[in-house]
Formats: sequence, C-alpha cells, structure tokens
Amino acid sequence: MKDFIIIGNKAVTGGKISLNDLPGSAGRMDVLCRCITSALFVSWGMRRDVNVHLVLKGAPGPHKIVRFCGLSMRYLNPDERSAGSLIQKALLVPAGDEEKPSTPGVFVRNGGLFELVTEFKASGRPLIYLREDGDDIRKIIGETPGAFDDAVYVLGDNRGVSEDDEILLKDAGARRISLGPAPLLASQCISIIHYECDRLNPPVPERRAENGCADNAASD
Amino acid sequence: MKDFIIIGNKAVTGGKISLNDLPGSAGRMDVLCRCITSALFVSWGMRRDVNVHLVLKGAPGPHKIVRFCGLSMRYLNPDERSAGSLIQKALLVPAGDEEKPSTPGVFVRNGGLFELVTEFKASGRPLIYLREDGDDIRKIIGETPGAFDDAVYVLGDNRGVSEDDEILLKDAGARRISLGPAPLLASQCISIIHYECDRLNPPVPERRAENGCADNAASD
Repeated sequence: MKDFIIIGNKAVTGGKISLNDLPGSAGRMDVLCRCITSALFVSWGMRRDVNVHLVLKGAPGPHKIVRFCGLSMRYLNPDERSAGSLIQKALLVPAGDEEKPSTPGVFVRNGGLFELVTEFKASGRPLIYLREDGDDIRKIIGETPGAFDDAVYVLGDNRGVSEDDEILLKDAGARRISLGPAPLLASQCISIIHYECDRLNPPVPERRAENGCADNAASD
Repeated sequence: MKDFIIIGNKAVTGGKISLNDLPGSAGRMDVLCRCITSALFVSWGMRRDVNVHLVLKGAPGPHKIVRFCGLSMRYLNPDERSAGSLIQKALLVPAGDEEKPSTPGVFVRNGGLFELVTEFKASGRPLIYLREDGDDIRKIIGETPGAFDDAVYVLGDNRGVSEDDEILLKDAGARRISLGPAPLLASQCISIIHYECDRLNPPVPERRAENGCADNAASD
C-alpha cells in the first residue's frame, strides 16, 4: 500500500470550481489532477493499492483533505478534467472532522497535513518527503525490502512545501529522498517513485471484469 | 536532442476540437496533451532540446503531424487544456506537405509516421520503439554513451501501435526497448525515459529571463 499526500497550497476548498480553469481560479488544481492520474493509473487500469490525499489549503477555508482511494475508485478517467470533476463533487459535500463519502472511491473531510502526518505516524508507516538534497532513491531503495512499497510520500505543488509544513515533516521524522539530478513536476515524481518500486515488486494486473474504472481508462 | 513521436490513432485531424471533450470527440487527444507536458516540462521550466511530433490519424484526414518544438515554444502551460488549445489552433492552419508555423513553437503539416521515420532514418538518429518485450533500458542505456539522449522515441496512444506502423518501424531498424515490468501510460513512459537519461546527463536549467514559457508554467 502506497499513500501520496499532495499539498495544494492555493487549491480552493469550496464553491463550484470551473473545470475550464483548473490552473487559474481553482488554484492550480491541475497539478493535483495530474498527480491523481500518475499515482493511480497504469496502462491496464488502476493501481488498487494506492491512496492519494489532496491537501487543499486555498480559499475560502477551512483546509480540506480529499482522498482518492484506488481500491474502491469508480468513474475516474486519466484526463485532468475527469479528476477535476470528482474533486468538484467532493467539495460540494458538507465536510466535517470525520471522512464522508462523495462519489465511489472519493472521500472528503476537514483537515490538513498535520492530521494526516499524525495518523500515519501513529500507524507506523514510513514517511517520505521529496527534496532535491535528500538521499538518492536508487541508492537506498534496496536497503529495506518492501519499505518503499508501504511508504507515505509527501509532495508539494508548484509552490513546493511551506516552511511550516517542512518543520511538521521534520518533527515527524520524515525521511528526505531525492529522485536524481532533474527537478521534476510533482506528477513526474510520482511516476518515478512507482517505477523504482515496480522494478523490485512488479504490480499485479487486475482482471478487467473486476476493474471499477471506465473502459476507456484501462489503457493510455 | 530528443524527439518523441506519439501516434494518435483516432486523434482528429481537422475542425474545431472541443477543449471540454479532449478524450471523447477529439479522439483521445488528452493522451497526446499529457505526453507534451511529460516531454517538455521540468519544475524550472522547459526542456529546450526536445521535440514532440504528434501523428494525428483520425477523421476527417488526411493524417497530420503537429510538432511541438521545445526550443521556440511559447504560451504552453503544463495543463492538458493548454496543450489542447495549441493543437486546436494548429489544426486551423491550412496544412500542406511543408511544415507551416502555427503559434510560436508549434508547426503543422500533412504526413504521418512514414514521413517522420524516413526523415529521421536519413539523418542517422537512433530510432527507438517502446515494447514490453524489448531490451530493458536500464541494462543498455550505458552501452553507447549519449545515444539515448540523441534518440527518436516512438510511442502509441491508448490503442498502441497498429500492425502496419509496427512493420514500418521494424523495417526502419528501430530498436525495441522496455521500461521495466509495469505497462505504463504513454506520458509515464516519457517521464521514465527522461529520468533514465537525466541520471547520466543531467539537464541544464534555463535562465528564467530567457524562458519563453509562461511564469506559472515554470514549476509544478
């Protein structure tokens, strides 16, 4: 099980977002949509053992967490607009401190990075934070077999990770790793993390009949 | 210099495409848009030494090639709709056998995989074709230093590569490579190719003042 936490520093937390303007009025929601596709899709369908937690920190507040759960996901296609549409629906659900279901596989609640890090730390899962000056993933991924397959990865959007969030991650004992010499888009980082893990533990294809995603999402 | 050829088996070749329906009426144009972002963007801006050639094979015909040139690209942001908008404009240019400029960095002409492969073969550039049963990129990338940085990569969309196109590639002597055990989306494959090449030859950041792409495209 892999979990990806993506911090949307300006991603809006309410109102009806415009699917025609995900980068603008929705607060770079396009970055988060690309991360969902990178994290959940392979060419035969969906990675069922992955969760994506979008931390929305934009207006009007309070901060929200929208979770995309690979195991129960339905109605998600690989295009940005498809993910944006499910986020739009999730933002219309009245959120509280407890997670509430939106569309199948999508959940919403109030909260932010603090809540997620606290919960994952309590569960004993390894926390990983991407930084260019971190340990090179390729050198360390073989150190503890399977650890990277069961990790929680934290990534920032186009604005990166704020100083406060960085302190929070440091205090939680998150390990800093790097993905080589090129600074990449968050969605590209996710593809690389999967790629490095897949080489050690290839993903098992799901049978099409059991595939909850739409037909045209099964390959790309 | 890297060139990526992406085959859009049903991608439309004319008319005004709907940016709200890139996966549907535009013939899975969303796949091609994601490939453009993966090929051209890093977090500090754009890879100026990359070309993307979209081979559009859908209705109404004839087949068209839309080229995105990293060196002279402007007005491109990382979201799918941004790439889709530039493709839309290119399709409104009356195309002939010679390449014509559309928006800065985008060019269009009639033609398809045959023309591209013939031209690249004549130039002596290595042709690479992605297949799951090909040679593992990680095992062979060090064989001929720099060869993968100067290669032409051919990828299919969600429908893959047709039998005819595969024969064409085989006849042209294209080398078959694989990217590990997981079958990936075309856009994810491009991220992995860059990643493997970057580890041997890191990309040189462009200076922001010389960056032709929009400010909000410089990171993600």
